[in-house]
Amino acid sequence: MSTGTTGSPVRPIAIIGGTGPAGMGLALRWARAGETIIIGSRNLLRAQQAAAAVQLKGGPQAKVSGMENAAACAAADILMLTVPFEGQASLLKQLKPAMTAGSILIDATVPVAAAVGGRASRTLGVWQGSAAEQAAEIVPEEVSVVAAFHNVSAELLYGDLALDCDVIVCSDDPDAAQLTRDLAVKIPGVRAIDGGKLENARILEQITALLIGLNFRHKGRAGIRITGLPPAAYR
Amino acid sequence: MSTGTTGSPVRPIAIIGGTGPAGMGLALRWARAGETIIIGSRNLLRAQQAAAAVQLKGGPQAKVSGMENAAACAAADILMLTVPFEGQASLLKQLKPAMTAGSILIDATVPVAAAVGGRASRTLGVWQGSAAEQAAEIVPEEVSVVAAFHNVSAELLYGDLALDCDVIVCSDDPDAAQLTRDLAVKIPGVRAIDGGKLENARILEQITALLIGLNFRHKGRAGIRITGLPPAAYR
Repeated sequence: MSTGTTGSPVRPIAIIGGTGPAGMGLALRWARAGETIIIGSRNLLRAQQAAAAVQLKGGPQAKVSGMENAAACAAADILMLTVPFEGQASLLKQLKPAMTAGSILIDATVPVAAAVGGRASRTLGVWQGSAAEQAAEIVPEEVSVVAAFHNVSAELLYGDLALDCDVIVCSDDPDAAQLTRDLAVKIPGVRAIDGGKLENARILEQITALLIGLNFRHKGRAGIRITGLPPAAYR
Repeated sequence: MSTGTTGSPVRPIAIIGGTGPAGMGLALRWARAGETIIIGSRNLLRAQQAAAAVQLKGGPQAKVSGMENAAACAAADILMLTVPFEGQASLLKQLKPAMTAGSILIDATVPVAAAVGGRASRTLGVWQGSAAEQAAEIVPEEVSVVAAFHNVSAELLYGDLALDCDVIVCSDDPDAAQLTRDLAVKIPGVRAIDGGKLENARILEQITALLIGLNFRHKGRAGIRITGLPPAAYR
């Protein structure tokens, strides 16, 4: 996390579609950990407003700016995607030309049935197997896709308390997965676990639907912890 | 858990297909908690051998016997199904006449692709949505199906240590779900959570495939805990 591929001294993280609670929450936690953050939005003003809010909450040393999604995409080589499923494919197609070879796209999209007027506690079948695999089909070949952060409560992320959950990270690119796990553990209380290949993202996405159902039913902000693994599994 | 529907003073739990580690583990934990257990198998001798092993491990006060599956089914009104997916549908069709109206079938079947020569870390699509919903389609209407215990390590169950995991319980019958949660919390270290309708079993089944993959990758005996819910959600 020291030097970007362009040789610039910082390697910013662009949060694409980052004006919702999940995007602002990740921006906040990573800004507090010293990362340089760009919040992206279709609307520049909304991006700047969200960035200002995160900057305020993150404190004077936070480095958060707002840009249109395509500009954010071009300015960073770590792209965190936090958009509703119904916008994922079209946004990625639109941003494809702005993506730098060697970039990493971290996808947290959950194909909830709410995308087509159904329930957020049910999922849609995605032809490729998961929203993350759909993303991998759309982005340039030189962009590695990682699935992670589906199961972290957005409300808790955009707060001040340590979290109590694990982030399972799935990717076909081991280096991109490792970088994502390193980012995950910058969030206080989070442990990161290698969840294997990107195809396993389908299960992470389903788990979110279960957690949304539990939140409805029990008025909570559910997350998951994996138990029973040796200490070396968590990193 | 005091009086059976037949008026007998005990209400035994039949573990159908119970000679594997999951079945013997549940038998052991419930026997230790004072429940009367019948281990069922296609093969009477194997059932009796498994029952003797659980009896020995459970101690002198354990009440464990072995029967053929159909006899076990007829002798109990709580049926716990622990069979590989490839045997689930045909066994249930065969046992259907032996099931008593008002019985509860607790299904822990996971449709892993290993059932057709694939991997245990991948699942098959089940037309009904889940193995549990397939079970519900087969059993008599007067039998309530509950999905639970998919995500508990069989090896840890058939041991002496307290577990470190939650059991999410899904059913369309609230009373059957409550009874199953009451049974789950008899296992030391287990919390039980209402996971909503039986259709959500598809997610519980997927989670097992994820945990199997984590076990392969990290040499563990993975389970899950749900965090972020209020205390009243766990029971």
